[in-house]
Amino acid sequence: MGRKKVIMMNLVIIGGGAIGLLIAANLAKGANQNVTVITRTEEQAAALSESGIGVYSQGRVKIASSTAHRFDFNQADAVIITVKQYHLPEIASLIRKINLTCPLFFIQNGMSHLSFLSGLDHHHIFVGTIEHGVKKMKITDIQHNGVGSWKIAAYRGDLTKAAFLSKWDSAVFPIEFAEDYKSLLTVKLIKNLMINPFTTLYNVRNGELISNPFLLLNMHALYEELEMIFAEDIQGCSFEDIKDLCNKTADNQSSMLSDVLNGRKTEVEALTGYAMKQAELKNVKAPVLTLLHNSILAIQYKAGYQ
Amino acid sequence: MGRKKVIMMNLVIIGGGAIGLLIAANLAKGANQNVTVITRTEEQAAALSESGIGVYSQGRVKIASSTAHRFDFNQADAVIITVKQYHLPEIASLIRKINLTCPLFFIQNGMSHLSFLSGLDHHHIFVGTIEHGVKKMKITDIQHNGVGSWKIAAYRGDLTKAAFLSKWDSAVFPIEFAEDYKSLLTVKLIKNLMINPFTTLYNVRNGELISNPFLLLNMHALYEELEMIFAEDIQGCSFEDIKDLCNKTADNQSSMLSDVLNGRKTEVEALTGYAMKQAELKNVKAPVLTLLHNSILAIQYKAGYQ
Repeated sequence: MGRKKVIMMNLVIIGGGAIGLLIAANLAKGANQNVTVITRTEEQAAALSESGIGVYSQGRVKIASSTAHRFDFNQADAVIITVKQYHLPEIASLIRKINLTCPLFFIQNGMSHLSFLSGLDHHHIFVGTIEHGVKKMKITDIQHNGVGSWKIAAYRGDLTKAAFLSKWDSAVFPIEFAEDYKSLLTVKLIKNLMINPFTTLYNVRNGELISNPFLLLNMHALYEELEMIFAEDIQGCSFEDIKDLCNKTADNQSSMLSDVLNGRKTEVEALTGYAMKQAELKNVKAPVLTLLHNSILAIQYKAGYQ
Repeated sequence: MGRKKVIMMNLVIIGGGAIGLLIAANLAKGANQNVTVITRTEEQAAALSESGIGVYSQGRVKIASSTAHRFDFNQADAVIITVKQYHLPEIASLIRKINLTCPLFFIQNGMSHLSFLSGLDHHHIFVGTIEHGVKKMKITDIQHNGVGSWKIAAYRGDLTKAAFLSKWDSAVFPIEFAEDYKSLLTVKLIKNLMINPFTTLYNVRNGELISNPFLLLNMHALYEELEMIFAEDIQGCSFEDIKDLCNKTADNQSSMLSDVLNGRKTEVEALTGYAMKQAELKNVKAPVLTLLHNSILAIQYKAGYQ
């Protein structure tokens, strides 16, 4: 790369879901970088190479794409991993091919991927939360409905190694840096815990959780349990914050409900499953959380996942 | 009546639902009685007078029928009230027209109708539970799938005044008498509490509550709460009894789920609502019961009932 006048950065996104495509499309807007999306299927890789990513209604963005076995991870200057938490073990061997000095960015819900990260030898590992209303319409196209932000914190190593991302900070794709990764992930976890299982159990959009007074009562009962389990970090996420979030995302279908309605496995273990373990560690009785956890497992069991 | 050689009994059933028609059809099989069904609508009264009650696949049974305002309740020798608990206030003025010595038989779910009964002046009041797999197919016809029994206990007065019913005890319509009305109703209430709200929340048949291991976990959590609330009477209804019942009625749709799927109001107040009040009286925390209660209220709220 030294021979070129302009230093090109090779940015790699592993995962061709809605979040992966949203990040790829936005990173590819700037100059002086190659953005490559690594997909699971040859079909999606070919389609993305052919037509780029379509962002409704902002037009198309050219990117490169590949499947993992065709890609040389030695070339990566930064790798952003957007696969779901329960798919991380499948790409573990692939991550081990990445240079140890290359910064890795993980965007998964919940906290249970932290134990996966602890097993990596890479020097600069970042975790983050992403809050955007984004929906995959087909394998190359997404709809970007609601602008949120990508919050990034260092799990290990030097946060300055993530600073280059601020170049892409924009009105439709804001990027923020946070000091405490644990608190960042826990606040996001609490939001997911409050919204995802209930919307899935009752098959409702986010807004109905607070517009239906009886669902609001159940929301409150769960919040009281989470206050006991996550006593420290819940300060960053009041019940009013949750209500605001439900209001702002009133028409959204939660990711867990979408998973169930589309016959996909949910992130139940990373969300309620993780919270159950924390409750046990802290000796907190959490009957509402437990009922929700079992309810989602029951729904998955019925659909054939166990 | 004394002038006739054979004494005819006038048996009156108030309520033309599945249970009312099942009782009417069976009481009308014997000799020496007139059976009249009092219906809410003129349409059903006319249809029943015309064609009788059809019991799939046992054929038709002739009965009389009438609406309340056309019927002389002074002629009744026994009145069986099968309307839902929340419809009792509507027929209160009608019940007051019945002679005080005429035995009254009430068949409602839950316990909250007991306060209604306490306001009546009649000398012989019986309550009961009925467990039959029976479904109303049209306004004159029922399907009798599962044989259970009609259990009767005295709420007030003399149980011998109910003894005449034993004449109709049969293999397809067994009649039993019980000593303790409160325990009888509580055991039935516990069964309803264990099955109705969960089947409604998860939209499943009774059998799935125990064949899905995660639903079974939630069943167990509720049972533990009911053990605290109904410490005395739950002796008559072990968790194994509940599992047996779910097994025996595996393909049944619970009455509450049927109500929701057919856009009818449910018996939530007589079931979980009553249990919530008992929990409060006994200072028992019942988070699972509370969540279920709110969930059913939420479903009703969504459907337009409040």
